[in-house]
Amino acid sequence: MATMQEVATRAGVSIATVSFVVNGTKRVSPATRERVTAAMAELGFRNNVVARALASKRTRIIALLHPALEHRLGSTSMKFFMSAANRASELGYHLVLWPVVTGPDELRDLLSGGLVDGVVVMEVKMEDSRIERLTDLRVPFISIGRTADTTHLPFVDIDFEKTMEDGLDYLTGLGHRRIGLVIEDLEGTSMAGYAPHIRSERTFRESMTRRGLLPHVVTCGPGAAGGRQAAADLLATEPDISAVIVMKDDSAFGLVRGLSTAGRRVPDDVSVLSIASSDEAGAQSEPVLSTMNAPGHELGKLAVEALIEQLDGAAAPDAELPHLLLPCLLHVAGSTAPAPA
Amino acid sequence: MATMQEVATRAGVSIATVSFVVNGTKRVSPATRERVTAAMAELGFRNNVVARALASKRTRIIALLHPALEHRLGSTSMKFFMSAANRASELGYHLVLWPVVTGPDELRDLLSGGLVDGVVVMEVKMEDSRIERLTDLRVPFISIGRTADTTHLPFVDIDFEKTMEDGLDYLTGLGHRRIGLVIEDLEGTSMAGYAPHIRSERTFRESMTRRGLLPHVVTCGPGAAGGRQAAADLLATEPDISAVIVMKDDSAFGLVRGLSTAGRRVPDDVSVLSIASSDEAGAQSEPVLSTMNAPGHELGKLAVEALIEQLDGAAAPDAELPHLLLPCLLHVAGSTAPAPA
Repeated sequence: MATMQEVATRAGVSIATVSFVVNGTKRVSPATRERVTAAMAELGFRNNVVARALASKRTRIIALLHPALEHRLGSTSMKFFMSAANRASELGYHLVLWPVVTGPDELRDLLSGGLVDGVVVMEVKMEDSRIERLTDLRVPFISIGRTADTTHLPFVDIDFEKTMEDGLDYLTGLGHRRIGLVIEDLEGTSMAGYAPHIRSERTFRESMTRRGLLPHVVTCGPGAAGGRQAAADLLATEPDISAVIVMKDDSAFGLVRGLSTAGRRVPDDVSVLSIASSDEAGAQSEPVLSTMNAPGHELGKLAVEALIEQLDGAAAPDAELPHLLLPCLLHVAGSTAPAPA
Repeated sequence: MATMQEVATRAGVSIATVSFVVNGTKRVSPATRERVTAAMAELGFRNNVVARALASKRTRIIALLHPALEHRLGSTSMKFFMSAANRASELGYHLVLWPVVTGPDELRDLLSGGLVDGVVVMEVKMEDSRIERLTDLRVPFISIGRTADTTHLPFVDIDFEKTMEDGLDYLTGLGHRRIGLVIEDLEGTSMAGYAPHIRSERTFRESMTRRGLLPHVVTCGPGAAGGRQAAADLLATEPDISAVIVMKDDSAFGLVRGLSTAGRRVPDDVSVLSIASSDEAGAQSEPVLSTMNAPGHELGKLAVEALIEQLDGAAAPDAELPHLLLPCLLHVAGSTAPAPA
């Protein structure tokens, strides 16, 4: 590929002028622009992303950082990702998924050269070194998820606190008093401290206690087998459990089967409510699961819009940081019913 | 960020010398190297990916092109992707997932500037314009999947032909004669012509006919609801069907439920074999599904190794193109049994 210097020499202009043309700014006369574009064509110079990175510091590439090699990219995360990628594409950006574990040095190496215009961070922990690093590097970013301290954090997130309260309102409204929570076991893994689980479990414990009820929490291993084991563990803790909230799509089917194996009919004996889930995931069980559906489509879109507003300089300099929370919405299907008498 | 020119001026060397240092080549004396690295440190020059792209045409970034916005990134694709990303990371490369629909112009724009060193293509159609474009652009690439003509195509792929023959050998060995195939409906979508479906369906039809059996094929819409409908459609075509091959993880559970609703016990009345699947997906049904497991882990790894061999110049110039096929392996669980008498 020809360099900008070669194009500049051929056209008899400065590199800066070539850069203006590559950028599409208006400061170049039509005659000069024509000389530059003719030189670009003759030399095979292409207006590509690396040239743009040099010329303008803009590549229109957004990197979505997801630790997919450490934490399964489940169907809820996928919905965030697809929605973000779609919206970026509509707004003239390319969104790529960067799956590798990104330590501080790797982040700096990737981000300091202007390769990407901005970053979306996913799978955020209560304390997350990636956030500090992005702030230090002054790379425009938005977080899907919240650290413990959100003072300086631009984010969108599921409102896990409200989701859990709404779920408990629904189940206690059906008369349930002995309610369990089944949640992924991340202790000792690199995802320990994952904010959605900590917020959901904390809210469950606090809200149950405030309601004068005992919070039963069991952790759950991967897949259907994990769900079956969680059913056994929960019944060992409280044989008369009448409702379970599960926050783990890939184990919800196994949980229902495990309850059934133990002689509990769903929903006649035990109600099951799957949270941070979706209708499609709920349909992969029998009975079809009542779910609280993650607003992945809305939040993925809003995250990218807020980021691109920053990138395009459309956000007022003194504008407040985006702090946007949406709860999961209840969709009642076949796995929840009034508490047995 | 400082430019290489500024570093060169400060160090009193040529840009080429700075480039040698950035590249880590050995042609620079220790004293000169020290002057250059000191200048880089003083000026805040970073050895980042854009600098490397300019200096050496090497960024150590591999783009995996997946049309995820048009075709669901299912659990089988995810396994290919994760394995490829993991192996790339072990070999010192970054693999990113590029999800957007990539037309010829977008591909050229992204690839011609040296932003990525190489490309992995997924979700290949029998005729796939991306392959021609990558060949024209002379970008090193490998395909996970095969076009109709593979003469000039470096690829790894599931051996769908052998997988289907092996599956039919297994089912006919159990005495089944009335066998159906349930396959995703892509007609009229942008994924029409998707090679795995065309190869599998063609092999099913040819092999059944060769075995003197009638090939019953029904197409299937999304999710559990699609599977339920496919069960009804299949029984309308052949009420005495005794075995079904399904190639659609997200609809296999619905298919089993649909058969059950129609009064067919699995596996006593109808056997179900889920192909291009996994043990984890098979466990999300009751009974646990017998599966033919996609070798996503092996093929993702082998694809990246073959690509990086090309990139690192380790492949002999006259070496044959990688043409690697692995079949899905049978794992018998609870959904298959001898044909009813």
